[in-house]
Amino acid sequence: MNKSRLEAFSDGVFAIVITLLVLEIKVPHVKLEELSFALIALTPKFFSFALSFIIIGLYWISHHNMLHFVAKTDRISLWLNILILFTVCIIPFPTALLGDYPSSQIAVVFYGLTLTTVNLSGTLFWYYSYKNNLMVKNLNPVFARKIVILHLSPILFYVVAMFCSLISVKVSYVFYILVPLFFIIPNVLLKRIFAQPYLE
Amino acid sequence: MNKSRLEAFSDGVFAIVITLLVLEIKVPHVKLEELSFALIALTPKFFSFALSFIIIGLYWISHHNMLHFVAKTDRISLWLNILILFTVCIIPFPTALLGDYPSSQIAVVFYGLTLTTVNLSGTLFWYYSYKNNLMVKNLNPVFARKIVILHLSPILFYVVAMFCSLISVKVSYVFYILVPLFFIIPNVLLKRIFAQPYLE
Amino acid sequence: MNKSRLEAFSDGVFAIVITLLVLEIKVPHVKLEELSFALIALTPKFFSFALSFIIIGLYWISHHNMLHFVAKTDRISLWLNILILFTVCIIPFPTALLGDYPSSQIAVVFYGLTLTTVNLSGTLFWYYSYKNNLMVKNLNPVFARKIVILHLSPILFYVVAMFCSLISVKVSYVFYILVPLFFIIPNVLLKRIFAQPYLE
Amino acid sequence: MNKSRLEAFSDGVFAIVITLLVLEIKVPHVKLEELSFALIALTPKFFSFALSFIIIGLYWISHHNMLHFVAKTDRISLWLNILILFTVCIIPFPTALLGDYPSSQIAVVFYGLTLTTVNLSGTLFWYYSYKNNLMVKNLNPVFARKIVILHLSPILFYVVAMFCSLISVKVSYVFYILVPLFFIIPNVLLKRIFAQPYLE
Repeated sequence: MNKSRLEAFSDGVFAIVITLLVLEIKVPHVKLEELSFALIALTPKFFSFALSFIIIGLYWISHHNMLHFVAKTDRISLWLNILILFTVCIIPFPTALLGDYPSSQIAVVFYGLTLTTVNLSGTLFWYYSYKNNLMVKNLNPVFARKIVILHLSPILFYVVAMFCSLISVKVSYVFYILVPLFFIIPNVLLKRIFAQPYLE
Repeated sequence: MNKSRLEAFSDGVFAIVITLLVLEIKVPHVKLEELSFALIALTPKFFSFALSFIIIGLYWISHHNMLHFVAKTDRISLWLNILILFTVCIIPFPTALLGDYPSSQIAVVFYGLTLTTVNLSGTLFWYYSYKNNLMVKNLNPVFARKIVILHLSPILFYVVAMFCSLISVKVSYVFYILVPLFFIIPNVLLKRIFAQPYLE
Repeated sequence: MNKSRLEAFSDGVFAIVITLLVLEIKVPHVKLEELSFALIALTPKFFSFALSFIIIGLYWISHHNMLHFVAKTDRISLWLNILILFTVCIIPFPTALLGDYPSSQIAVVFYGLTLTTVNLSGTLFWYYSYKNNLMVKNLNPVFARKIVILHLSPILFYVVAMFCSLISVKVSYVFYILVPLFFIIPNVLLKRIFAQPYLE
Repeated sequence: MNKSRLEAFSDGVFAIVITLLVLEIKVPHVKLEELSFALIALTPKFFSFALSFIIIGLYWISHHNMLHFVAKTDRISLWLNILILFTVCIIPFPTALLGDYPSSQIAVVFYGLTLTTVNLSGTLFWYYSYKNNLMVKNLNPVFARKIVILHLSPILFYVVAMFCSLISVKVSYVFYILVPLFFIIPNVLLKRIFAQPYLE
């Protein structure tokens, strides 16, 4: 399959998932005078919506950056990409779960596990494509390895977040928020990775 | 990231949000002889659906017009665009809220605040892209400033609408309707802005 | 706005609307031994789903054929296209209504009115584009007029269907089915219209 | 209609269907201490979600491969493609049904019948396009016939699965899983078919 069709299909899935998230926030049905309280009670729903929106946005950008260095696809890499989309498509469920049970350790762990599978499948896609010469010519192996680390590093934060939920779910939230922040705010680590020449 | 992929992704999100709106209008489950009354009772839902549809349509066109003058993107402008999409994706919620509580001041204010954030993030995107030389070459600074005003001006209407809700929500609705009307119906103000030469 | 972006956005909306239809068919929650009866009771839902799917498919093809002869767009034609999309996006609601109240005259009329607005706005778009020289060069005026008739003719069927609902909604259904059948099954009338040379 | 627009529209529908599946998994509303049990009780929902995701992914790839050999479309082939999309769009319903009634023979049969119609309409599209010279020039008739068999062969599995449900629905599930596995895991049969020269 042509790379551009794979990209278009993946973009479509990302766009739909990110937009569907809001459907999980339901309008409360209460008396008019209780409406403000009912809306304030939705705060955890809005928070989990915003968090997942930013994280899916980040995954979309990462997916795009990753495909930038991929020159072709084969049957296996095609299915690995579907695996990525599969894990991304699950996100609305743990997001809604987190919104409904914001203080539940199970919800926090489910959320972290889902995000972990996204990063694992992304790494798998990258690693497989690299090992099977599906990349652009002369891709710098040092750069390729750094990208593997970049894809795996958020998992560390997710695992810490999941463990922290044993003590306090609030700390877990902090770690979940740190991941997109790291990629949004310009920083030394990111700079150093991308300072690496892409090609040999 | 390539501008055309950003556009395609944004278009996808706009298309999905605008189409999802109708899902908030649920078929009433009543006895057959009460169906006509139950449907008439849905009038506020249809109204808020139509209003948001036109406003999202307007945002889509504005987004497209804005990107027409943008030549490239960087990490920050990419995230500012995701911020725009984030605010647009929220719209179905206050739309449903307004449909369910058409006479509620809170619903009217929530709706206005959401629309305000869309315009603010749009302005931010435009301003950032201008200040960081991401625009097409020789873009006329006078034109660029007029576009900022054009993006900010609806906020004035939204704020007035929100304040009017203290007295009468019906007046608020009039102000919300005025915004898309201004951009749809050909008028002197719009003409004057676009009479401005785009390039120096 | 560039015609191809208008097409892409419209295609997106059509694709989403046609796919959302199935969400209106909810899985019944009954005892296992009552499941087969509960599923059979969903027959009207499946029927209205299938009918709307085919009709939206038809609208998508017609929209595409129409844009084939349009060379450019202006502000007004852009909004007329958004009007078409607006009417198309409403369809899931009357479809669900028809599925829930298959023998209701109101549901039948609501369905017919919605489809009528789609055809009217399509005709308006075509007529406006023609009158304002937005078409491809040398478009045959006889052909342009025949297309107007082609866009308006289903309304005749819809109106008859709505009137028939006074006597029997079953007859209404027959007329609703006839419209897509006319466009799917090769026939003399369609052939004659498209035998007309497109260009002068 | 241009082939690439048909592809883009079809891709859109596939992307939406595959992403909508997750909406059928609803967050349970129970006491916090019962949440883990309630989530475990959702296992059949997750299973049917995953199964349908992979199968729709497979259909998307097959659809794409099929169109690779199609050079043009006509009115009938366009409607046959809409028939394919129609059958694919139904999938979320039997998926949800299977998730809610995992041990129901009716749910298993409904699921199998839906998948069967997808394969039948795909075969019909291919066969019609071949017989009416809509294919690329010099397509090898032996190859074309093998593709027909490839499209029909999953039906054998679906029929066996449906019959097995009389004895044990668990065996049915095995047969449903076997179909995507056959196409994902590299194997001798697939290799032999695609070893066939495409062109004469």
